[in-house]
Amino acid sequence: MAIIVQKYGGSSVATIEKIKNVAKSIINKKNQGNDMVVVVSAMGDTTDDLINLAKEIATNPCKRELDALLATGEMVSSALLAMAIKDMGYDAVSFNAYQIQLTTNGTFGKSLIEDINEDVILSALLEGKIVIIAGFQGISEEGEITTLGRGGSDTSAVAIAAKLSGQCEIYTDVDGIYSVDPRLYKEAKKIDEISYEEMLELSSLGAQVMHSRSVELGEKYNIPIYVGLSCSDIKGTYIREVRGVENKPITGIAAVDSDVAITLKNIKYDITLLAEIFQAIAAKKINIDMISQTTPDNGVTSISFTIPKEELRECLVVLRGYAEEQQIFIDENICKFSVVGIGMKTTSGVAAKIFKLFSESNIEAKMITTSEIRITCAIKSEDKMKAVALVAKEFEL
Amino acid sequence: MAIIVQKYGGSSVATIEKIKNVAKSIINKKNQGNDMVVVVSAMGDTTDDLINLAKEIATNPCKRELDALLATGEMVSSALLAMAIKDMGYDAVSFNAYQIQLTTNGTFGKSLIEDINEDVILSALLEGKIVIIAGFQGISEEGEITTLGRGGSDTSAVAIAAKLSGQCEIYTDVDGIYSVDPRLYKEAKKIDEISYEEMLELSSLGAQVMHSRSVELGEKYNIPIYVGLSCSDIKGTYIREVRGVENKPITGIAAVDSDVAITLKNIKYDITLLAEIFQAIAAKKINIDMISQTTPDNGVTSISFTIPKEELRECLVVLRGYAEEQQIFIDENICKFSVVGIGMKTTSGVAAKIFKLFSESNIEAKMITTSEIRITCAIKSEDKMKAVALVAKEFEL
Repeated sequence: MAIIVQKYGGSSVATIEKIKNVAKSIINKKNQGNDMVVVVSAMGDTTDDLINLAKEIATNPCKRELDALLATGEMVSSALLAMAIKDMGYDAVSFNAYQIQLTTNGTFGKSLIEDINEDVILSALLEGKIVIIAGFQGISEEGEITTLGRGGSDTSAVAIAAKLSGQCEIYTDVDGIYSVDPRLYKEAKKIDEISYEEMLELSSLGAQVMHSRSVELGEKYNIPIYVGLSCSDIKGTYIREVRGVENKPITGIAAVDSDVAITLKNIKYDITLLAEIFQAIAAKKINIDMISQTTPDNGVTSISFTIPKEELRECLVVLRGYAEEQQIFIDENICKFSVVGIGMKTTSGVAAKIFKLFSESNIEAKMITTSEIRITCAIKSEDKMKAVALVAKEFEL
Repeated sequence: MAIIVQKYGGSSVATIEKIKNVAKSIINKKNQGNDMVVVVSAMGDTTDDLINLAKEIATNPCKRELDALLATGEMVSSALLAMAIKDMGYDAVSFNAYQIQLTTNGTFGKSLIEDINEDVILSALLEGKIVIIAGFQGISEEGEITTLGRGGSDTSAVAIAAKLSGQCEIYTDVDGIYSVDPRLYKEAKKIDEISYEEMLELSSLGAQVMHSRSVELGEKYNIPIYVGLSCSDIKGTYIREVRGVENKPITGIAAVDSDVAITLKNIKYDITLLAEIFQAIAAKKINIDMISQTTPDNGVTSISFTIPKEELRECLVVLRGYAEEQQIFIDENICKFSVVGIGMKTTSGVAAKIFKLFSESNIEAKMITTSEIRITCAIKSEDKMKAVALVAKEFEL
């Protein structure tokens, strides 16, 4: 008998009716002879509603209390799902993080999982029970309630699958992973399988299908992750180690408008100063993405980088400590356009092909960064749709 | 420095605005030099809403899962209250039952508290924190979430006060305990102090101000309980050992329409048979209150008793196993009218005075039971208001 760890997202358990449908799907797989462990998110928009409550009550809600508050959402949906299954004549039991000792490193709001007591789960399975687990939450060694960050239930599910050596299935409101967000490019094709590395790049570039940590964990423990539409037979996407040799050079495109480019012009070329600036920005937990620097000329240089738009104000406070106001240039009108593909490791000329496409269509690449499996360009926001369509067509995505 | 354990009911924390007011009240007492421990109920109608969700999802919701579900309500309000206090510049921390190891005997839906780890609370107080505790919930020795029954947060508060040797203040949406429910008798007076025994009788007779278990615990550990209106200076009621000698004979009246009287006529007088019948009813967890039996005549007897109306159907199933259909008589048109007073121990003639009042006004007492400090009569429902007014006036309640 295989152990299957399923995860159902908030939209899949948004209503009583949907919870009942999920219960039926689980029972169906149980009847096929599988041991079922199910991780659930909070119902629908519950987490957002709770965050709004917190913001109403405090201008800057205490992180410890916010985690204690948010963890309740998953406890509600897991208890309801267990009730629904029992009502259909099958035995089930819900557990919260404390009950399975899902311990974390204790960071509020974005904890990392340290361990899980699989014995509790295994003995419930041995008794023939369907096990329902509240996702997204953990317990620190000090007994504090900690959450794993938005989308963290994915990570709960993969960690539990790793611990139980089970299969992992993530069910959500999309029917798989697409080469391009279908809202940007209607003809985007669903991907049958994608490597952990590629999925990680796409997730961190703003494709919000999967919690990045869950993909990292899947790769670390080599747990294949299936992503599909809940309560349906439509074929989804497998995230796993891809061994095929005839990969396309590009697997997917991500294009996001949520970043802003900052350029420091004509600042003194001094590597110690640069390190200091970037350290000061990092100390504010501001995520820097693309960094590019010009060749120093006469002892001065220009340096550009991107950060999320909502962190601009805080970043400027830091920068003003190091540069004159007239040296700081801000470009909010950019789109971070990325292509990702493990095939790039073996296929050369991908960058050249993309730049040729861009130049033929007058799309200017303002900044460029690359890794082994991705190329990212900052282009003008208004060129986003054109760039997506051009590249997707060229590489048959 | 005194330790004050306060409890705020659901109506006192029903909205963000109300939670903020509660936070201010707590801070006020903290500033007067007290160590503050605060037990909260779920916001407003949250518990009812959760019960309704459970009923929508399952015809007979699993009790274990129902407790796991209901416990979330108090976790939400305790986290929000802690946030509100911190936002006002005071340090606070919320704990759920697991975190203070509030252990219970494990009965789902109506657990009894076994112990509390007061060290967790005391060390938070030592750090200058205001401690907020999710009421109503506990953890069994097996780590199961259990609840203490409706109104159980009162019991959480008294148990914590007992453990910390603190004072106990129960805040709610009424400004104290009245001699008679003001909805039944407008001129009812607020009671300054009432003994544990009297309060217990009134609670178990349907006066829904306090959770009975909390009063029992208060008596057992001799913790005075103050009951008052939240966030106000109106003087409330103390429940404590009353030592005064000049008590009125009657402290309060309770009158409820929620019971039904059942009479078994002309059944064989056989004490073994009677014991069997009442055992069978008890096995169904049906609460029998008044029992009265006629003198046996020619080997047959009649026996009457009252049960809550909602348990009538289940009780009849039991009775049909022991009596013919034509022997079972049901009277749904009764009011259980009780007077309670510790003064009755020393004042004779209270019953005589009440029966005289009733007979002068043509109020028929269908059944009568008494204890040392209470007299209960089953009267016709339509006589309820008249009886309340007569007795309240006579005894100056």
